[in-house]
Amino acid sequence: MAVIDLNCDLGESYGAYKIGMDEEVIPYVTSANIACGFHAGDPMVMERTVELCREHGVRIGAHPGFPDLAGFGRRNMALSPEEVKASVKYQIGALKAFCTGAGVRLWHVKPHGALYNMAAEDYQLAKAVCLAVKEVDESLVLLALSGSEMIRAAKATGVFCASEVFADQGYQSDGTLVPKNQKGALIKDEDQAVKRVIRMVRERKVETVDGRDITIQADSVCVHGDGAKTLAFVKKIREGLTAAGIEIKGF
Amino acid sequence: MAVIDLNCDLGESYGAYKIGMDEEVIPYVTSANIACGFHAGDPMVMERTVELCREHGVRIGAHPGFPDLAGFGRRNMALSPEEVKASVKYQIGALKAFCTGAGVRLWHVKPHGALYNMAAEDYQLAKAVCLAVKEVDESLVLLALSGSEMIRAAKATGVFCASEVFADQGYQSDGTLVPKNQKGALIKDEDQAVKRVIRMVRERKVETVDGRDITIQADSVCVHGDGAKTLAFVKKIREGLTAAGIEIKGF
Amino acid sequence: MAVIDLNCDLGESYGAYKIGMDEEVIPYVTSANIACGFHAGDPMVMERTVELCREHGVRIGAHPGFPDLAGFGRRNMALSPEEVKASVKYQIGALKAFCTGAGVRLWHVKPHGALYNMAAEDYQLAKAVCLAVKEVDESLVLLALSGSEMIRAAKATGVFCASEVFADQGYQSDGTLVPKNQKGALIKDEDQAVKRVIRMVRERKVETVDGRDITIQADSVCVHGDGAKTLAFVKKIREGLTAAGIEIKGF
Amino acid sequence: MAVIDLNCDLGESYGAYKIGMDEEVIPYVTSANIACGFHAGDPMVMERTVELCREHGVRIGAHPGFPDLAGFGRRNMALSPEEVKASVKYQIGALKAFCTGAGVRLWHVKPHGALYNMAAEDYQLAKAVCLAVKEVDESLVLLALSGSEMIRAAKATGVFCASEVFADQGYQSDGTLVPKNQKGALIKDEDQAVKRVIRMVRERKVETVDGRDITIQADSVCVHGDGAKTLAFVKKIREGLTAAGIEIKGF
Repeated sequence: MAVIDLNCDLGESYGAYKIGMDEEVIPYVTSANIACGFHAGDPMVMERTVELCREHGVRIGAHPGFPDLAGFGRRNMALSPEEVKASVKYQIGALKAFCTGAGVRLWHVKPHGALYNMAAEDYQLAKAVCLAVKEVDESLVLLALSGSEMIRAAKATGVFCASEVFADQGYQSDGTLVPKNQKGALIKDEDQAVKRVIRMVRERKVETVDGRDITIQADSVCVHGDGAKTLAFVKKIREGLTAAGIEIKGF
Repeated sequence: MAVIDLNCDLGESYGAYKIGMDEEVIPYVTSANIACGFHAGDPMVMERTVELCREHGVRIGAHPGFPDLAGFGRRNMALSPEEVKASVKYQIGALKAFCTGAGVRLWHVKPHGALYNMAAEDYQLAKAVCLAVKEVDESLVLLALSGSEMIRAAKATGVFCASEVFADQGYQSDGTLVPKNQKGALIKDEDQAVKRVIRMVRERKVETVDGRDITIQADSVCVHGDGAKTLAFVKKIREGLTAAGIEIKGF
Repeated sequence: MAVIDLNCDLGESYGAYKIGMDEEVIPYVTSANIACGFHAGDPMVMERTVELCREHGVRIGAHPGFPDLAGFGRRNMALSPEEVKASVKYQIGALKAFCTGAGVRLWHVKPHGALYNMAAEDYQLAKAVCLAVKEVDESLVLLALSGSEMIRAAKATGVFCASEVFADQGYQSDGTLVPKNQKGALIKDEDQAVKRVIRMVRERKVETVDGRDITIQADSVCVHGDGAKTLAFVKKIREGLTAAGIEIKGF
Repeated sequence: MAVIDLNCDLGESYGAYKIGMDEEVIPYVTSANIACGFHAGDPMVMERTVELCREHGVRIGAHPGFPDLAGFGRRNMALSPEEVKASVKYQIGALKAFCTGAGVRLWHVKPHGALYNMAAEDYQLAKAVCLAVKEVDESLVLLALSGSEMIRAAKATGVFCASEVFADQGYQSDGTLVPKNQKGALIKDEDQAVKRVIRMVRERKVETVDGRDITIQADSVCVHGDGAKTLAFVKKIREGLTAAGIEIKGF
């Protein structure tokens, strides 16, 4: 039976600042990527979010980002591979402490925002992320963009990896995502988005923005967690996948 | 044979900012308290300092502090016990990741600056620190002011603890340190300071600022690491203790 | 004719994090206290909020706080008077730059949260705030708790000041507010809250938590801006004051 | 008589962290660029540094940088032009408050590190910096790399500007500096470095790394302030220029 994981970014609140609908979204996902205090999240939020995942039996991943709270980790920053490696180790370790405290296992690592995008295309950064993961805990799984340099680096460094796909974002022929300011970046039709995911899982294919089919590995599909509309979409994709006979469970 | 540990705060540099003489001091101590990025230190500095400790066979401790880089963690901050607990877990976890990466063990936890002082006198904060230590790793040792609320909380919560004494600071009759702005806060005569430590180890006594003797437990003596003068003092205390037949080794 | 100002804290969002209902609340107030990037706010938010005030003809004040974004400036911090003075100058200057850019005047300064509370009771901190205000711009008005050390320090240092009162918070016999964890801290009955303000303006009296009357100076009443319920209250207090023949305008 | 300004980055310390030899270097320069708290500096340091400049009659400039204390503002960050503009306004305003307090004039603005380099090549960022300068104070002078996009943007937006040259860095044919990891980036021979500056002032020419002469405008020469070696070089360049009959004074 075909299987896929649904992952979501959680724990992005900070102090008095609340972002996301963690409590509402969590029943519908199988994996959570928890912010680690650099681009979002703080120790109290991390502790609470790990507990929330424990209660719902959702797999926990670290979601390390650039040290840029003001930019929510979405602005490219020219960190050296050494700085990336040390920063990722730091953030994984911090989150792992809360997992240990809650008696649950830290399962995976998914870089956030600009770090995710930069490491998807830059092998040196990708390798730095992989080495960080490996040094902290060899049993961790790197969750990264299907077909990216991160997947390549994970294989080269002997790090377990899982390939992530996006339901509502367009793909280019080389497997990268269509940049957000370009045509075709967003799949607005939700039914079409769900169909795309089903095809990715079943046929390992997706149609690119210029009408060609490319091969894609779909171990986990990302659903964003920060809006009422998204909550509706999470439910929809879950129903659609289930109706298509695809089992939703952690990778 | 009488034994004592010499501990020192290391890894307090930050980015382009250098503080301390880590390379020079480390050969003379047996335990290092490494800053964890809140009041000092950053991921690169932490990684390098753990490596330095590994090379010198020095025991590694986490040195968590308040989130106050501008104040170097020396300014009192009214964090709730829950915030203290989560912040300490976060910082221990972050440092532990570098220990795991370097293949060395994280040995102890010593709170820094204002957190150390506040938790020494406030049982609720002390307990929060202890629970944080215990939840992350039950084998960790809390290093805290001899006779303080932290030692009391460690015993109550079942956390291993070691008692710290100060060579060059005056004590009050209740076992607390003389506040820095009061007379007798600093022991300026280095020979006298060394003699005090020897007596603390051998007789478990120290003379207070008002001339009385109190009982004190000396498992580890703190030596500051941020000046050329200090380096000379570290050597002196080491020689003095050794000459007095006291073995210097990790607690 | 009796007059009072309605002030509200605005511009407390930060990066991707949104707090408050600035656009909704601003039509109902006459003065805005804008966060300056230490406890809340960032340069983009400050620029936008100054512009919003300009559009609505609302008087602009700087709302400096402690450097504690994670704690939203609500946690006491032991800054020295010198540190408070420099930090307040910095924040006023930063906000003033946006006022200059928008062609509007910076009118007042109101310390935020823990800084407000600490300076209300500690004359040295209060004086530090006043000197900061005076050094940056002698024409600025300090907005501070009626009867507090800040008002006393403003008079002693020759800084213009205006006295702030709270509609929904209880007062103690010495003029200070009832601590939030004590009985009588909050006036839950909105009609009663409005009546209290009307009496403060007309009779310069308020009934304390223990049933006595004390004298109070009400130049401005604070309305919080971070909830749908508050928006309703702002409208209510505005209607109540107007119906009572009290004019609402900037101090 | 030929004239040039000697500028230096000052006020880069932060809390307990000291960088630079401000007191030693300041007697030898005519302009100081003071860090504004984003990449370096804090309110206490800024206040003290403005005072130091006042005592020595040195012209004061704001030295705004990226919000990246850990990277000392030297790491490229993808801020939008709007974010750059708001951030620069904020930082100029903050420093100006200390100038007002000290009764001295804020004279110029020189972007720092990665912001300087990025705005030197990207017209949109350069324009954002210029608009920030203009909105805060039309009388301010932008100090920027000779021949850069910043100079071009200053002229287009009607902002006063002065051209900066470097004594010990190599130039490329297009007027940009040789990247630090390439051959010819650094002029190691100090006598040659001084001669280059003299020629830039007198002939408005400099020889590039590939042996060609290009035209250069030298209103101010930058001397770094963070090492004992540099202090010697500052003295040397000052003597060399004076001996060559070039007057050293503020632009």
